[in-house]
Amino acid sequence: MNKLINSILVVVICLSCAFAKAQQDSIQLKKIYDTALTQGNSYQWLDYLSNQIGSRLSGSLGAELAVEWTKSQLDSIGLDKVWLQPVMVPKWIRGAKEYAYIETELGETTQVPICALGGSIATPPTGLKAAVIEVQGINQLKALNPEEVKGKIIFYNRPIQDDLIETFKAYGGCVDQRYSGAEEAAKLGAAGVIVRSVTHSIDDYPHTGSMSYGDLPREKHIPAAAISTKGADLLSTLLKLNPDTKFYYSMYCRSLPDVESFNVIGELTGTTYPDKYMVVGGHLDSWDLGDGSHDDGAGVVQSMEVLRLMKSIGYRPKHSIRVVLFMNEENGLRGGRKYAAEAKVKNEQHVFALESDAGGFTPRGFSFDSDDRNFNQVLSWKKLFEPYLIHYFVQGGSGADIGPLKEPNSGIVLAGLRPDSQRYFDHHHAANDTFDAVNKRELELGAATLTSLIYLMDNYIQKPGVQLTMPIKN
Amino acid sequence: MNKLINSILVVVICLSCAFAKAQQDSIQLKKIYDTALTQGNSYQWLDYLSNQIGSRLSGSLGAELAVEWTKSQLDSIGLDKVWLQPVMVPKWIRGAKEYAYIETELGETTQVPICALGGSIATPPTGLKAAVIEVQGINQLKALNPEEVKGKIIFYNRPIQDDLIETFKAYGGCVDQRYSGAEEAAKLGAAGVIVRSVTHSIDDYPHTGSMSYGDLPREKHIPAAAISTKGADLLSTLLKLNPDTKFYYSMYCRSLPDVESFNVIGELTGTTYPDKYMVVGGHLDSWDLGDGSHDDGAGVVQSMEVLRLMKSIGYRPKHSIRVVLFMNEENGLRGGRKYAAEAKVKNEQHVFALESDAGGFTPRGFSFDSDDRNFNQVLSWKKLFEPYLIHYFVQGGSGADIGPLKEPNSGIVLAGLRPDSQRYFDHHHAANDTFDAVNKRELELGAATLTSLIYLMDNYIQKPGVQLTMPIKN
Repeated sequence: MNKLINSILVVVICLSCAFAKAQQDSIQLKKIYDTALTQGNSYQWLDYLSNQIGSRLSGSLGAELAVEWTKSQLDSIGLDKVWLQPVMVPKWIRGAKEYAYIETELGETTQVPICALGGSIATPPTGLKAAVIEVQGINQLKALNPEEVKGKIIFYNRPIQDDLIETFKAYGGCVDQRYSGAEEAAKLGAAGVIVRSVTHSIDDYPHTGSMSYGDLPREKHIPAAAISTKGADLLSTLLKLNPDTKFYYSMYCRSLPDVESFNVIGELTGTTYPDKYMVVGGHLDSWDLGDGSHDDGAGVVQSMEVLRLMKSIGYRPKHSIRVVLFMNEENGLRGGRKYAAEAKVKNEQHVFALESDAGGFTPRGFSFDSDDRNFNQVLSWKKLFEPYLIHYFVQGGSGADIGPLKEPNSGIVLAGLRPDSQRYFDHHHAANDTFDAVNKRELELGAATLTSLIYLMDNYIQKPGVQLTMPIKN
Repeated sequence: MNKLINSILVVVICLSCAFAKAQQDSIQLKKIYDTALTQGNSYQWLDYLSNQIGSRLSGSLGAELAVEWTKSQLDSIGLDKVWLQPVMVPKWIRGAKEYAYIETELGETTQVPICALGGSIATPPTGLKAAVIEVQGINQLKALNPEEVKGKIIFYNRPIQDDLIETFKAYGGCVDQRYSGAEEAAKLGAAGVIVRSVTHSIDDYPHTGSMSYGDLPREKHIPAAAISTKGADLLSTLLKLNPDTKFYYSMYCRSLPDVESFNVIGELTGTTYPDKYMVVGGHLDSWDLGDGSHDDGAGVVQSMEVLRLMKSIGYRPKHSIRVVLFMNEENGLRGGRKYAAEAKVKNEQHVFALESDAGGFTPRGFSFDSDDRNFNQVLSWKKLFEPYLIHYFVQGGSGADIGPLKEPNSGIVLAGLRPDSQRYFDHHHAANDTFDAVNKRELELGAATLTSLIYLMDNYIQKPGVQLTMPIKN
């Protein structure tokens, strides 16, 4: 009988502890969100990064200034360590503004907005003019007779799929023609490629982005440009009216030798597990057309804000928490690779990494690249997040920069913030990715959401090899 | 034994039916969302309403044009009936643009952005200049010595609460000083009131909105204006530096006699329950400063789109579904009251009403004013809505215009669409509530979400007095 009473007592005590812990977590999350919304600093940081520094393409002056300035800001918030991690990055420059027009068979021309894709070679200095073949993607190109392709401009015009609710999936279904379209067309002897901008919006902004020639020898490279969706629609219409319609474009971009740049890193050293690391980050580089406010200024300042908020509410983490501002996500991923490689050399055990690189819009939840045990743990936090309208918890991808941290058997949990994505591709890699498109509250809510997840992971993450049924207590 | 087998068979058949029905619903919802996103018309309609007609304050030319045009559009989509329901509405006009400045004790003046609150009287033609008392709300005003208030301008400066995640709650916690601030100040002998704009954004836009003098006699009315948040912060700072700081403003607004206007109504008559009605609506009137794209052009075109989508996917509703574009929500609610009163006179049984009046942003879910039975039914649809990132289902308020349909024991279910609300009050009742602030996909997703709920309600609503455990089958 005594044994039964004891057992009951143990259960009651366990339940009370769990309840008290949940309540404490709920109070902590409220403190995080309140502080982010009433005394946040992410929006002010983004204002500076976007409006005083501007675009930050790898190897550019903007990127250099952004490294210096974000380091100075991390220095100012009283972290335990702040440092720069050198990394060699590609340097591609756009040069003079691109120019393009469509020419009818009568010689009438209509100017259309284009931009070089990142990594493309230039056209000849006097430009390139050729007949155009429109295709809906690489497969359709491959079905063509190579004789027909030779010397032509290939116009990839497959639009983004509007009926996909998750816009990143729509992007993923379309971006192959931007990334590999030139390589494939060059193999068939095309003179150049023009790619429909990967966006839902029908407007005048061309959207750049990375492209690759694969293993093609230099002399086979052909110039690759993005055309605005309105430009693409016009070109397609004119080609239907007259297949002899020609396209002219001039671009002056080129690749220079690699230069040194840096990941910017700050750390709050853990009280209980100083040698176990959690990372929160975004990428410091951006494309050069806008000021990179959504991609990924937002992720940068939100990640910095995670550590500032922890300091501000007086939370000392158990694990060492690092903010990592990765260099060169857009056209090389050198920063992400460098960080992971150095962690491996130094044998630093990373248990969790979280990236914000999907825009500064209202946060909806997270995608986890995780074992089931930790993912189920996360699902048990749904109620904690509900008051902040965070409902989306799925297993899937995380973020490009933190991907290299995933080693076989490392057991690391990766996650990516998932903000509302409906407007994201309207701005992505285009001249309208600017500060005015970011809303203060939405950005701050994202920072609080990241901080809350890091806080919960810091307290409850289940490490590989340790089978726990109750939260870790420290 | 035979009986047992029979019972098992019945259960299996019931489960199969339920499963088949759920699958059919899932297919129907996909059809609705796909059509809204790829062949939608809500955005094109909003473009016309906002950019060709513009603002639509009750009794204005814009309101008249909006009535005519929306009726013509409903006529064009092949509904069973379309008609105008006459309603007398107040006519308040702003007159010449307002002007205001802060005057220091040295006579230096700084112009600040204000606008008259809807329903306010004008200042004297030469304006009103007086000393200012800043208060944080009506309670603080009431604690003042009436002698001190006499002849002064009362400056209500309580800001919206930034740490509330649901911004409509923050609005609700602040709007009393706008609505009743003048009445209360006038009772104490104040000469006028200036109210901090109810918005999260710190900027130069004054936000108008309705106000009331309650039962005060006309001669006691005092002019009431909203001041931009930046203007309010400046005024507050200058008052702290010198309590003798004065405020000047001139306004030329006035109320004219009521005029006739209309609710615009279209109907798809039900196949099974033609005399049982479901309403989906928004309000056609708007304030006069912007073009009312979010408030409530979005709700208008989304509601029209519900019926257009049903026609477009070939769905014939079982109940009669009405789109109702209500007139005069902003400063009188006459349209909502008229519709409900006429329904009562005609003994039309309304079983469900749904309003979209919270902006055209990404839909997150609904708030239901419903009995538990129907609300639990709604909760069983969560899985159906999940692919569309609709997660928010709560019991609470619905919409102002449909509120009057709620009669004791009517058993009507009311609901309001709940879009993402973080940016909403940045635009609400201000000159920047314009078409460019609405995103096409977000608007279309809202229309599809409304349509999906109407479709499900049409099939499964549980009517008062009829206790059902299984979906209604027709």
